[in-house]
Amino acid sequence: MLQARPFRGMRDILPGEQEVRLAAIAAIRSTYREHGFLEVETPVVETIDALRASGAGENTKLMFSILKRGERLDLAHAASPDDLVDAGLRFDLTVPLARFYAVNQSKLPKPFAAMQIGPVFRAERPQRGRLRQFVQADADILGEPRWLAEVELLVAATAALHRLGLEGFQLRINDRRALEAVLRRLEVPPSSWRSVLVALDKLDKASPGAVRDEIVAAGVEAKLAGHLLATLSDIDEQDGTLAALASLGVGDDVLEQLAAIVDHVRTSVRDTEVIVDPLIVRGLDYYTSSVFEITHPHWGTSIGGGGRYDGLLGQFGVSEPACGISLGFERILALLGELGVRVGEARRRLTIIFDPSTEVAEALRRARHFRREGYLVTLLAHEHTARSPMKRLALAAEELKAEGSQDSFWHLTIGIDEAPRLLMH
Amino acid sequence: MLQARPFRGMRDILPGEQEVRLAAIAAIRSTYREHGFLEVETPVVETIDALRASGAGENTKLMFSILKRGERLDLAHAASPDDLVDAGLRFDLTVPLARFYAVNQSKLPKPFAAMQIGPVFRAERPQRGRLRQFVQADADILGEPRWLAEVELLVAATAALHRLGLEGFQLRINDRRALEAVLRRLEVPPSSWRSVLVALDKLDKASPGAVRDEIVAAGVEAKLAGHLLATLSDIDEQDGTLAALASLGVGDDVLEQLAAIVDHVRTSVRDTEVIVDPLIVRGLDYYTSSVFEITHPHWGTSIGGGGRYDGLLGQFGVSEPACGISLGFERILALLGELGVRVGEARRRLTIIFDPSTEVAEALRRARHFRREGYLVTLLAHEHTARSPMKRLALAAEELKAEGSQDSFWHLTIGIDEAPRLLMH
Repeated sequence: MLQARPFRGMRDILPGEQEVRLAAIAAIRSTYREHGFLEVETPVVETIDALRASGAGENTKLMFSILKRGERLDLAHAASPDDLVDAGLRFDLTVPLARFYAVNQSKLPKPFAAMQIGPVFRAERPQRGRLRQFVQADADILGEPRWLAEVELLVAATAALHRLGLEGFQLRINDRRALEAVLRRLEVPPSSWRSVLVALDKLDKASPGAVRDEIVAAGVEAKLAGHLLATLSDIDEQDGTLAALASLGVGDDVLEQLAAIVDHVRTSVRDTEVIVDPLIVRGLDYYTSSVFEITHPHWGTSIGGGGRYDGLLGQFGVSEPACGISLGFERILALLGELGVRVGEARRRLTIIFDPSTEVAEALRRARHFRREGYLVTLLAHEHTARSPMKRLALAAEELKAEGSQDSFWHLTIGIDEAPRLLMH
Repeated sequence: MLQARPFRGMRDILPGEQEVRLAAIAAIRSTYREHGFLEVETPVVETIDALRASGAGENTKLMFSILKRGERLDLAHAASPDDLVDAGLRFDLTVPLARFYAVNQSKLPKPFAAMQIGPVFRAERPQRGRLRQFVQADADILGEPRWLAEVELLVAATAALHRLGLEGFQLRINDRRALEAVLRRLEVPPSSWRSVLVALDKLDKASPGAVRDEIVAAGVEAKLAGHLLATLSDIDEQDGTLAALASLGVGDDVLEQLAAIVDHVRTSVRDTEVIVDPLIVRGLDYYTSSVFEITHPHWGTSIGGGGRYDGLLGQFGVSEPACGISLGFERILALLGELGVRVGEARRRLTIIFDPSTEVAEALRRARHFRREGYLVTLLAHEHTARSPMKRLALAAEELKAEGSQDSFWHLTIGIDEAPRLLMH
C-alpha cells in the first residue's frame, strides 16, 4: 500500500479553503486589471540558466532541480549534480518575468504593466508555517524609469488588499541609495555593504543583538556596527525622517523621490498609513533604489514587498528599468482568517436525496430546475444517508463551514418523505 | 547574456490569450460548481511512489523527476537515476486525487464530487502542438458505485462545454467489459487483452493496418486480428449497437447500464449527440468498466474523456469506487479559436496620457474616477508616445485583439490637446 501523504512540506487544499483562495485570487486579479495591469503566465519549469540569473540570492540555493531525461542523462560521467539537471522549478515570479519580457517585448506595450498569480517552489527545511509550494501575486511595471511606477504599484496593491477586506496595514517605503548614503557617511567599508544590507533586512525577525553580530561577521568593527544600528533606529523614531536622512548625507534627488512617492500614494489611497521607513531593505540583491514593504500590526513579518530592480532585465539582454510588488498570498490569507474577515460571497448549496431505483429521472429533472435557479446542486442516492440519515451530509456541511465557506446548505428529499420538501440544515 | 527562451516544450502565455484562458477556466469552474462539484487542489509535486502507482501506463514514463536535495543526494553511490530522485511533477490529476482522497476522506462528504483545474507535466519529445506543461480540467465522483456517477459527470461536462460556447460535439460511451466480452467470444488469448485494448485505443489516430500490426505484435494471429477489427467496425456502423453487442456475448447487466447512461444523459442535455461507441477504449490501464470520450467533427482527436477506475484508490488503501472525466483544456481552447467562438466578456480599456512633470496628480485623480466607472485604466507618461504618438499604444491594442481580447481600447489625453478628450482607437 502506498503512502498517501503529500510530498514533504507541501499540502492538499480542501474544498472550503479552496473556495476562499479562489475568491481571494479573483479579488486581486480584478483589482489589478482595473489598474491597467495585463496578466501573463510563464511555465512553472524554467531552464537552470535562467533560474541561476544572479540577484535572487538565497532563493537560488532553495531551487528544486529537474533530472535530465533519456540520453541527456549520463550518470556514469556526472562529476556534480549540476551535470544531471537542465531545469528547475521557479522560486519566484520576478526572474521568469524578466525572461518573459526579454523574449516577448516586441508584442507588448511599453511601459508594460504586468500581473502574475501562481505557485512558486522553495526547498526550505519543512517546518510549521513554511510551505515548499506557495502562491505569489505579483505586479510589475517594466520600461518606466519614473517613480510613477512605484506610485501605481503601491496604489494597486493597496486597492487589492482593501478589496480583500484587509484594513489597518502600513505601506513602508525606503530607498537603498539612502541606506548606502548612511553607510558611506558612517564609513562602513563598501566591501561589506552587501552583507550589511542582508543583515539589516532581518531586523523584523531577529534581535538587534543577532543582527549586530551578523554585521560584525561581515567585516564591520563591533563599535561601528552598534553605532550604525543606533543611528538607523534613531531615524526610525524621529518625526522628520526626511530631514534626518538629509543630515546623514542622503542626496536631494533621493529624498525628493521618496517624498513624491509618499505624497502621491497618500492622496490616492484611503485609510492607509504611508511612511518612509529607513529600516526597510528587502533581502534580494537585485533591488537598486526604491524598496517597500506592507506590514500589519497583527502580523510579525511583512505581508508584501517589492522595489525597483533596474538591472535584472539586463541579464537577459534588455536594458529596461523595472519595478515590482509581490503580495504574500499565503500570509495574507492566514491574516484574514485570524482577523475573521470573510472573502467571497455566500451561495445556496442544495443536496437532492432520492431513491435511485425509481427516482433517477425525477432527481435529474429537479437538479436541472434548481441549477437554473442558481443553487449548487448535488444528487445523493438515499442509501448513502440510510444508516445515519443526514449525518454524513451535516458533517460535510460543517466541515465546509469550518474551512471558511459562507454557503448555506439545504436538502430536498424526494419520495421518501412522501412530498418533496426543501429543508435547511 | 542568458538565453531568454522558455524551457523546451513549454510556452509563455501573453496577455490576450491569458484573458481567454482565465475566462474559460471561470466558465468550467462555475458550471461544475452548479453541478455540486467541490474544488480541491493538490501540489504540483508528488512523491515518486505516488506517481509510480500503476495504471497510469505510458504517462509514468513521461514523468519529470526532481533531484534529491542536500545530504539525501548521494551521487557517489547512485546505481541508477532512481536513487537520485524522491519526487516528480504530476502527469495527470487523477493519481493525485486518489492520493488526496485516501488522506482526507474523513473530512469529505460521501460520495465526493470533486473538481480540479491545473497544470500537468509530461516529458514528451517536443513537437508542434504537443506541450510539456498543459492544463487539465477534471471532475470525479468518488464513492458512488452506481452509473448515476457516469450520468452526472457527462451532464456536467456537457454543460461546461456549452457554457464555453462549443456546440456540435458528441458524447461516445462504451464499457470495457463489452470489449472484453467480444474478445472472449472471438477467442482472443486473454494474455494479450491489455495490449490489444491499448492498440484499439489508437484507431482514431493510426490507420487500421497499423493497429492490426500492433494487435498481431501483441500475440494475436493475423487472421484473428483482422476479424476482430472487422467485427468491431461492423458494430460501429450498425444501427442497433446494443443488439449487436448482445449477439456478440455482451452480458445484460453491461448492456442495461450502457442503455441507462445514454437514456438519462440524452434527457438531461440539449443539442448533443449521445451514442454507444464500441470502439472507445481509453489508453489508461486503470479504467475498469465505463469509458467515454467527447469528440467534435472539426477535431481529429478527442477533446475530453474518462471512465470508471474502481481499483485505483485501492492502491492508496481505500476501497471506494470512482469515476471521472477530464476535459482537454488546451485542445478545447484551440478548437474554440478555430471555430471563431469568443470566450469571456468585453471590457473598456482606457489609457490616460499625461505630462509627468506637471500632471501626475491630475492623472491619478482621473484614473481613480474612471476605475470607479468600470474602465481598466493605464497611466502613460506622454514621452512614451512622443516619438510616434499613439503608435505603440495602437500596436499593443492590436496585439491584444489578435490574441483574442474583446476589449475596446480608449485613450484620454490630458493637457496636451488643451482639453481632455476621450477617444477610441
